[in-house]
Amino acid sequence: MKNKIHFNICERQLEQKTKLFSAIKEERLEIGYYNLPEQNIDPILEYAQSFDARIENIVVLGIGGSSLGAKAIYEFLKPVKTPKRKLYFFESTDPLNIMDLLSKIDIEKSHFLVISKSGTTVETISIFKYLYAKHRDAKNYTFITDEASALDKFAREIEAKIFYLPAEVGGRFSVLSVVGLLPLALCGVNIAELLKGANLVKESFFNDGYLKEALLDKAIFYAKYHTTYNINCVFAYSETLQYFSEWYVQLWGESLGKKQRHSAFHVGVTPIGLIGPKDQHSFLQLIMEGTRDKSVTFIKIEDFQDELTVPDITLPHLESLDVLNGIAFHDLITMQSDSVIEALQMQGDIPLDEIILERVDEESIGQLIYYYELLTSLVGQLININTYNQPGVESGKIILKDKLKNIKSRKG
Amino acid sequence: MKNKIHFNICERQLEQKTKLFSAIKEERLEIGYYNLPEQNIDPILEYAQSFDARIENIVVLGIGGSSLGAKAIYEFLKPVKTPKRKLYFFESTDPLNIMDLLSKIDIEKSHFLVISKSGTTVETISIFKYLYAKHRDAKNYTFITDEASALDKFAREIEAKIFYLPAEVGGRFSVLSVVGLLPLALCGVNIAELLKGANLVKESFFNDGYLKEALLDKAIFYAKYHTTYNINCVFAYSETLQYFSEWYVQLWGESLGKKQRHSAFHVGVTPIGLIGPKDQHSFLQLIMEGTRDKSVTFIKIEDFQDELTVPDITLPHLESLDVLNGIAFHDLITMQSDSVIEALQMQGDIPLDEIILERVDEESIGQLIYYYELLTSLVGQLININTYNQPGVESGKIILKDKLKNIKSRKG
Repeated sequence: MKNKIHFNICERQLEQKTKLFSAIKEERLEIGYYNLPEQNIDPILEYAQSFDARIENIVVLGIGGSSLGAKAIYEFLKPVKTPKRKLYFFESTDPLNIMDLLSKIDIEKSHFLVISKSGTTVETISIFKYLYAKHRDAKNYTFITDEASALDKFAREIEAKIFYLPAEVGGRFSVLSVVGLLPLALCGVNIAELLKGANLVKESFFNDGYLKEALLDKAIFYAKYHTTYNINCVFAYSETLQYFSEWYVQLWGESLGKKQRHSAFHVGVTPIGLIGPKDQHSFLQLIMEGTRDKSVTFIKIEDFQDELTVPDITLPHLESLDVLNGIAFHDLITMQSDSVIEALQMQGDIPLDEIILERVDEESIGQLIYYYELLTSLVGQLININTYNQPGVESGKIILKDKLKNIKSRKG
Repeated sequence: MKNKIHFNICERQLEQKTKLFSAIKEERLEIGYYNLPEQNIDPILEYAQSFDARIENIVVLGIGGSSLGAKAIYEFLKPVKTPKRKLYFFESTDPLNIMDLLSKIDIEKSHFLVISKSGTTVETISIFKYLYAKHRDAKNYTFITDEASALDKFAREIEAKIFYLPAEVGGRFSVLSVVGLLPLALCGVNIAELLKGANLVKESFFNDGYLKEALLDKAIFYAKYHTTYNINCVFAYSETLQYFSEWYVQLWGESLGKKQRHSAFHVGVTPIGLIGPKDQHSFLQLIMEGTRDKSVTFIKIEDFQDELTVPDITLPHLESLDVLNGIAFHDLITMQSDSVIEALQMQGDIPLDEIILERVDEESIGQLIYYYELLTSLVGQLININTYNQPGVESGKIILKDKLKNIKSRKG
């Protein structure tokens, strides 16, 4: 992947860069995700290789960090590489959604991955209870959780297969751990290539490679202007990146919306995922003419490995569109993104950059994921927050537990 | 539907409200969408009734305002009401997406609706050319466009069926016109009920009904604080509203991101669509602890018409989650949204409101759509912009045409 930055970088920020880089090198010793590209994936590969061939569907019961990463990668690769098995996600308590999903999968040909770091996620366990009440065979389930969690103890009791999350890897940084790798491997994704991509970015960053300066410059710009540009848009020119957008939104929003360590002030930058060219007809007007509160990162794909072309036909009265004739759709979509970038550059006051992925494959998406994880860590350092916790979601959980207890005591 | 507002409304804004209300009543004489609830839908109903029964798929070639509205309504209703025909959308030039869609539909059993207000939308016409080169029978296509557009002239020439957009109805306000109603009617949606819902909100607003004060208060608050709360989140607690979110994002962003009439200053408010409970595990942390730059509107469904329940089983080591036992999922999801609303209210400085839809049906979604159209118009009035144009997207189109001409002249 390449990253071209079009906004002005202050030349005199060498000191900031040096400081930031050493802070991240220090953080790397404590935070688990940094070293995931080098993990031993043999246990996952062996499990996938010996997996029951009659199983056609892998069904993840998981939400947030337990589902978004695998979904992003699976959906990215699906149009170019037919999955070995289909991947489904139960990630809502919406009864209509649960019924709809249940109607689509043949339970007999499905295996369920129950993924919950804490082991007590309300959504995941309520759906698991629903399924387990009907299908009590432990062979149908694999559990991914923290060692010694309540879910771990339960899974041991029923003698089901269990994988553990590695230490110090938070949910939204867990896609390159067993949380993402296991469902993906079962669906035929080449997880070694995925980690190879991630490792390329890691090496490039930590060993003075081509992405180091871009990442540091971008992080410093975002942090410095986080009150001016409080919205960061990722505008990806391919439908394949739709679920990557959702993963990015969680990673960025949940990591970077916090109280500052030194002041307890509320800070945060807001992620927005856009898909081109569709959102040229939706969101572009706001970027172009609205308040200057947004930075925009374009993601483009260099090689779509597809030769679909607009045919060379003239339609009466539509001759003005003959300029499209003979154009490959992959050239058209690239020209569309380039046109929008040029038009925005002409405005002169919107911070833009471009990420170019080589093609739709495991290595490219592995690079992109690790790039965004690093960028998140860098910005978190600079705005002086704890990037890796999410204390703000606890109070709602406590209120919910109270409500559930009250309704139980009234009923029972 | 109901709308409960939890933020402080200034008591002394009577004059603003009176002025705003009369401005909108005046605008209503010029802008076409206001009166769509009262249109004559007989031509659409007749066309749908006499439609070829062998056709199983309705395929929309359209983008932005030509696709998002029908998609929002179709996907909202789908889980409760099996569609008469399946609805597909070609809305990208991504070759992988086009190939993927083509592999899913049986062309022989499909009818194509080519929807383009201007008649020269690059995405729509390039895909149309691709299909038309292979399937030249005019009977397979119906066109929806402005009268006398180039596409209208072409459709007349091949003697295809044509419907016209009503005058003064912009793309993103066109869902309740033939643009949305025709595909929906062909898929078995009760479009009369849809318009009935819209009309309820219209009557309520213009004739001093229950929603008038809420709409005026909310619009005045949003406009007054548009630089403080420059981000407006819609947090809908149902997967059925996922595509409604996308429709809302286009409506709000493209309408309200503009240069001000009196100053040419850039203004705008940024829409974000969230789905609960999923986004509790993604975006909630940022709302709760991040910068105070967001208002949040919760959308809840009162009656999911579904009795799916968490079974009354105890799992060893997971006894703490027995509070879930016997709870209907529709109660659980409502308790989840209420818990988050309470937790956010306790923060004291986040503007919140709730919209409650009675159930998943045509009338409810018709209400919601018209409510948001009105709210958009009201805010647009107050921030002094032209809500109905989109001049910012033109420069990118001109650059693209130049690129296309250059590539043609080099090739040809």
